[in-house]
Amino acid sequence: MRRSDEAWPSHGGQAATLLARFGLPADRELLDFSANINPLGPPAWLAERLLAALDGLARYPDPDYREAREAIAAAEGVTPAQVLPTNGGAEAIFLVAAAHAGGRAAVVEPTFSEYARACRQYGLTVDARFLESQRFALDEAAALEAVARNDVLFLCRPNNPTGTLVERRVIERLLAAGLERGGTLVVDEAFVDFVTPDERLTPLLASWPNLILLRSLTKLYAIPGLRLGYLLGGAEAVARLRARQMPWSVNHLAASLVAPLLADHDFLARTRQWLADEQPRLQAGLAAAGLEVVPSRANFFLVRPASEPEATAGQSPIHITQEPGIGRRGGHLPWMANVAPREGFIAPPRRPIDGSIQAIKPTAIALATTEALFEHLLRSGILARHTRNFPGLDSGWLRLALRERADNERLLAALAEWRPA
Amino acid sequence: MRRSDEAWPSHGGQAATLLARFGLPADRELLDFSANINPLGPPAWLAERLLAALDGLARYPDPDYREAREAIAAAEGVTPAQVLPTNGGAEAIFLVAAAHAGGRAAVVEPTFSEYARACRQYGLTVDARFLESQRFALDEAAALEAVARNDVLFLCRPNNPTGTLVERRVIERLLAAGLERGGTLVVDEAFVDFVTPDERLTPLLASWPNLILLRSLTKLYAIPGLRLGYLLGGAEAVARLRARQMPWSVNHLAASLVAPLLADHDFLARTRQWLADEQPRLQAGLAAAGLEVVPSRANFFLVRPASEPEATAGQSPIHITQEPGIGRRGGHLPWMANVAPREGFIAPPRRPIDGSIQAIKPTAIALATTEALFEHLLRSGILARHTRNFPGLDSGWLRLALRERADNERLLAALAEWRPA
Repeated sequence: MRRSDEAWPSHGGQAATLLARFGLPADRELLDFSANINPLGPPAWLAERLLAALDGLARYPDPDYREAREAIAAAEGVTPAQVLPTNGGAEAIFLVAAAHAGGRAAVVEPTFSEYARACRQYGLTVDARFLESQRFALDEAAALEAVARNDVLFLCRPNNPTGTLVERRVIERLLAAGLERGGTLVVDEAFVDFVTPDERLTPLLASWPNLILLRSLTKLYAIPGLRLGYLLGGAEAVARLRARQMPWSVNHLAASLVAPLLADHDFLARTRQWLADEQPRLQAGLAAAGLEVVPSRANFFLVRPASEPEATAGQSPIHITQEPGIGRRGGHLPWMANVAPREGFIAPPRRPIDGSIQAIKPTAIALATTEALFEHLLRSGILARHTRNFPGLDSGWLRLALRERADNERLLAALAEWRPA
Repeated sequence: MRRSDEAWPSHGGQAATLLARFGLPADRELLDFSANINPLGPPAWLAERLLAALDGLARYPDPDYREAREAIAAAEGVTPAQVLPTNGGAEAIFLVAAAHAGGRAAVVEPTFSEYARACRQYGLTVDARFLESQRFALDEAAALEAVARNDVLFLCRPNNPTGTLVERRVIERLLAAGLERGGTLVVDEAFVDFVTPDERLTPLLASWPNLILLRSLTKLYAIPGLRLGYLLGGAEAVARLRARQMPWSVNHLAASLVAPLLADHDFLARTRQWLADEQPRLQAGLAAAGLEVVPSRANFFLVRPASEPEATAGQSPIHITQEPGIGRRGGHLPWMANVAPREGFIAPPRRPIDGSIQAIKPTAIALATTEALFEHLLRSGILARHTRNFPGLDSGWLRLALRERADNERLLAALAEWRPA
């Protein structure tokens, strides 16, 4: 039975739509592996704090969000003028796109779909550059060229949905190229809190006025329903973005939580411990279950069925070329070694004249196998994230969030029961 | 002492900035007459309901806001496809401006400053048309011409900050003119809940695909800190606006309150009773205190000191011409009769060739008198709303919100103590 593509929601969560799509009852309980939210959160004190803040709802938020900005500035080691609180990370993306309205943007795909969407909305041409299609390494030469050709380059670090992380020295070379040509580099660090050792690029702000960092407080603290993010940059760039922001875009409850959230170092320490315990464990488990797993630096994994090679007409065999320095990701490569490169699963990258790498389409059989795995998990009570709206993945992969031990075990148990048709 | 204009905040509230400006202690308690919020709210059940909704913070909001849209549609008698929940009324304004990016907008001034700001941000040229400067009546011919010349006309009804209300039949003539020329009419009904008898334009939506209504739930229910509004329009227009909206822009707590707020008919009835009791009473009291009061259909009043005529060089005397049908506001004219038209206070409107009425500047003495009144109120523990960033008022007036009886009495008592220098 061919199902309508429209029935696939364009973001995580949204279990109801997916249950309906597969004919499952709407009240089926699901473990949500589709949203990359810290399972340790929200912090225990949060409800009480929100309750205390309810009185403030009868007033408009402080349009300057002074307290929130000062708390963020102190935590990040920047000045309040370098900070702009936003209505989730999404507003930050839309503000940056608005600031370059009518210009040219480059987006490193596959990645969070809102960069390209925000750019299109503001009339930017979108120059999509693709990560290498097997290990999702960045082609530095192509990225440098993209920076030179465009007004702004969006890059997610660690990248959603691949979990990969462009090296800091590559970022600095991109910044240098951008500074020379008037190009801005926007690094979305929405998931950087989950990376150890610390990979946040805040120290680079002092040297690079063309760097904008996007942050989220809702993934680490598990309050995506409240909408809370911020952006960091040079004071001048931030002032320009702030001038474009609509008034009161961050609600009072969210703003009132900024300072106490950033002060809860114990919560962060417990999160780091959970990551250290569970991330390598789940990564190994997924690989042992026969999945191809992209080595991840974040709290989620991009996986696909490591099925046997299929005969597919018109597809050439794959030749993986590890790019020196960039494709390699230190201690994480051993996991990759669990997965032998497969031939015939997807077509090799084609590099056109402009230096970009084009998206490659998975074969029909690969798609069917991935969708079968998605359905198997759903029937087992596990919601994965499809990749239909990630250019360059096109539903050939699934994204699975890292959860607490017991949940991860349930995921692995469900995977153990899966046999591709 | 000349004080910097920058020290005047551009929206209501923000007591700290104003206290500092006048050298008053930051912890001085103030009755806030500067924000037009229902003093009966929030409803008593709200805290408990929010508490029950906290669990949902760990998930992203439903990107379609299905429940909220259905509740609004049912309450308004439209279809869910005609409804778009927004992050406060401000997001609705910015979305409409974005939908006409690069085009031409007309704004009927003096009015809420965000229409013009949103338009400028999206590269629209802004054609400012001014209400008649004594009674703030709409010049229908100029408005019809503005509709014909522009892609979109923003009109606030009842108007903030004047409290005046353009008649429905004038709106229909503007809609007809717009439909003919491809122009959209955006009517901001942020304060329409405070108007009796009911003046909402929802029934016109069935006939006019070029009508967009903006609504707020935060003024009536006194939760501006939570950010919650929506817009109504034809299904096609709403779909276009929705496509531009960033994901999850309305936080989960706000979205979860829509249905219960709209179901609380008792709260609305008590609000109507308060309005019926207090609005004419305060209006009369303000006039009796020697203020010139613009007859208001809303929960706030635009006032200025009704000082004796001052000799002002180069200013012609005023000749008020009551425009038939439009300038008159039924039962409210008697209040106006308390205030004799004065000569020499402000210059008469000048009508340039393009049919618009230019803003007129208050005299220096009038400004000083209004600022002195503002300061007197502040020192008496009462925060009024200055009008410095309302083109066409330029700080010659103050806006005072309607509050509960005891607070209104305190305002009147403070006014009774005022003697202009």
